[in-house]
Amino acid sequence: MTSHAYYNQQNHGPYELVDVGALPLISGETLHQCRLAVATFGQLNAARNNAILIPTWYSGTSRIIADVFIGAGRAIDPGTYFIIIVNQIGNGLSSSPHNTQGPQARGHFPKIAIADDVSAQYRLVTEHFGVQQLALVMGGSMGAQQAYEWAARYPSMVQRLATIAGTARTSPINQVISDAIIHGLRADPQFKGGEYADSTNVSEGLKQHARLMTLHGLSPEFFESGHYTSLRFASVGEFVEGFMTPYFETMDPNALITQLEKWRGADVSHITGGDLRAALGRITARTCVLPITQDQFFPPSVCEAEARLISDATCKSIDSPFGHLALFGADANWLRLLDMELKALLR
Amino acid sequence: MTSHAYYNQQNHGPYELVDVGALPLISGETLHQCRLAVATFGQLNAARNNAILIPTWYSGTSRIIADVFIGAGRAIDPGTYFIIIVNQIGNGLSSSPHNTQGPQARGHFPKIAIADDVSAQYRLVTEHFGVQQLALVMGGSMGAQQAYEWAARYPSMVQRLATIAGTARTSPINQVISDAIIHGLRADPQFKGGEYADSTNVSEGLKQHARLMTLHGLSPEFFESGHYTSLRFASVGEFVEGFMTPYFETMDPNALITQLEKWRGADVSHITGGDLRAALGRITARTCVLPITQDQFFPPSVCEAEARLISDATCKSIDSPFGHLALFGADANWLRLLDMELKALLR
Repeated sequence: MTSHAYYNQQNHGPYELVDVGALPLISGETLHQCRLAVATFGQLNAARNNAILIPTWYSGTSRIIADVFIGAGRAIDPGTYFIIIVNQIGNGLSSSPHNTQGPQARGHFPKIAIADDVSAQYRLVTEHFGVQQLALVMGGSMGAQQAYEWAARYPSMVQRLATIAGTARTSPINQVISDAIIHGLRADPQFKGGEYADSTNVSEGLKQHARLMTLHGLSPEFFESGHYTSLRFASVGEFVEGFMTPYFETMDPNALITQLEKWRGADVSHITGGDLRAALGRITARTCVLPITQDQFFPPSVCEAEARLISDATCKSIDSPFGHLALFGADANWLRLLDMELKALLR
Repeated sequence: MTSHAYYNQQNHGPYELVDVGALPLISGETLHQCRLAVATFGQLNAARNNAILIPTWYSGTSRIIADVFIGAGRAIDPGTYFIIIVNQIGNGLSSSPHNTQGPQARGHFPKIAIADDVSAQYRLVTEHFGVQQLALVMGGSMGAQQAYEWAARYPSMVQRLATIAGTARTSPINQVISDAIIHGLRADPQFKGGEYADSTNVSEGLKQHARLMTLHGLSPEFFESGHYTSLRFASVGEFVEGFMTPYFETMDPNALITQLEKWRGADVSHITGGDLRAALGRITARTCVLPITQDQFFPPSVCEAEARLISDATCKSIDSPFGHLALFGADANWLRLLDMELKALLR
């Protein structure tokens, strides 16, 4: 399989495919050919110092990142900044199981780490764009994990850091969640070790994926107070059937598993032998840590604890009954407050 | 299969099997032979008015209920009360898929409702024990659902009601949780529509069941603050591998699914055409609603809202970092505070 009904320019473009070559992975394997799907907005200035890098979150692409964060008058304004949205490896647009040929195709796609994404993105930023200074690296969820890795590994390159609804190290309970979600996909008899003929064959596994994303992606308040009605669904059942299931069931199970395993293993302290304090202590960027108060994956207490290990960091928890999936942009109030924080950081 | 390595007198006894006959179910089907496994403590007094009825929770049996709640000097004191612990239908001791012969065996066991349990228990209490007045009906979780059903259906029989960590109607989001847990068992290729040769063959499904019970049964605080160390586990991973998985993987998937479907459909308002206010308004028992503050299944706000629909009810939320599984009795402080509430109710 090289084409996929969901992962294409029509649904997620425009983006450019940049070949950054063979990528040595921290697992010891090599990704034979690493292509990054990249969408840019605005112009790089003459001083080459107005670039903002935004890696994608789990299951998302450059399209939703642009829709949620970028706009004239917004904090991330293409009139001021050169904005690079880079799709994470395995997200379906960048090198992924379904679009890779040969021995690393589909069920044989290698295990990728957040660190590997940042290695590939370093090549993209320095070699393809000729940028040595990033005004801001920001990301939500798994995008925050990539942003933490950037700021800890290349502190002199990252002037500012904004990590939204994410942590530098995946918590043990989030590893149990990722195990459960991965199992839900792999247990489908049609999954066949990732060698299914068509991703829609894995519909039972994808439906279970949607259920588990519903249970953890939103907040108890979202369901108890009926916030799904703001999205025009009359009941929780209709919200699951009408939004969560169709949103996720068009995706590719191998791509989701590649990203889930990456999330499961994320730990910025791989650069300091497991010492999180030392790893976050390397960050010199002016940092804004922005948890979502009702987030079930990344509770503010965990985000705050990490922020305290960064020399120049503030932590501001922003309320949203949407929980983690406030990232989707449906909560205008959350977006407004987030923009205020990002504007203050960029000022 | 009629015997099972887990469901027997050695592990869960002593209990008596009481045949209450063919049981018409609210689905329209009939359970051909309904046997209830019953453990009693203490003596019925001459006035026959000192009986306490305690139905079991999800996956639990009379053994754990007795261990957690009953004792000399405790609120539920066998020196004062005649205590009847009745195992819910499908829990592995009472009539269940694995111990039923003929056309309703295993994968063909009929769908049971909370209302059906209460119908069977009514026969047990009135016909087998000759009791017309219950000093208290109490239960935790699915046991609370049975207790609510008792108090709403037979108000004149139930003097007092204590519902711990449970609701009278399963919330829509808990229906999504139960769907996810059921799917996790059924998706195991070894499940074979419930016709597996041995329940241990369904080990992958049972491991997934343990993961999902871990994610919802405890509380974020339990994991963030490392309360698993009080159970002598060094990490979340060891807690899942060393406690949750072995605890649940010895159970029978068909039994778990029978109970999960019962939980999914629980709704006391079936007696009032869907009107919860009317159903709970029927309750005349002196009622104590006892949610667990950190419960992920049954948050205090939902329990409190139900308590307000009962004429003589108080609601007291008791703190436990164990969340829902404080019911297992490992949090001595929660047990102590619970006993105080139950003693006050019985005074």
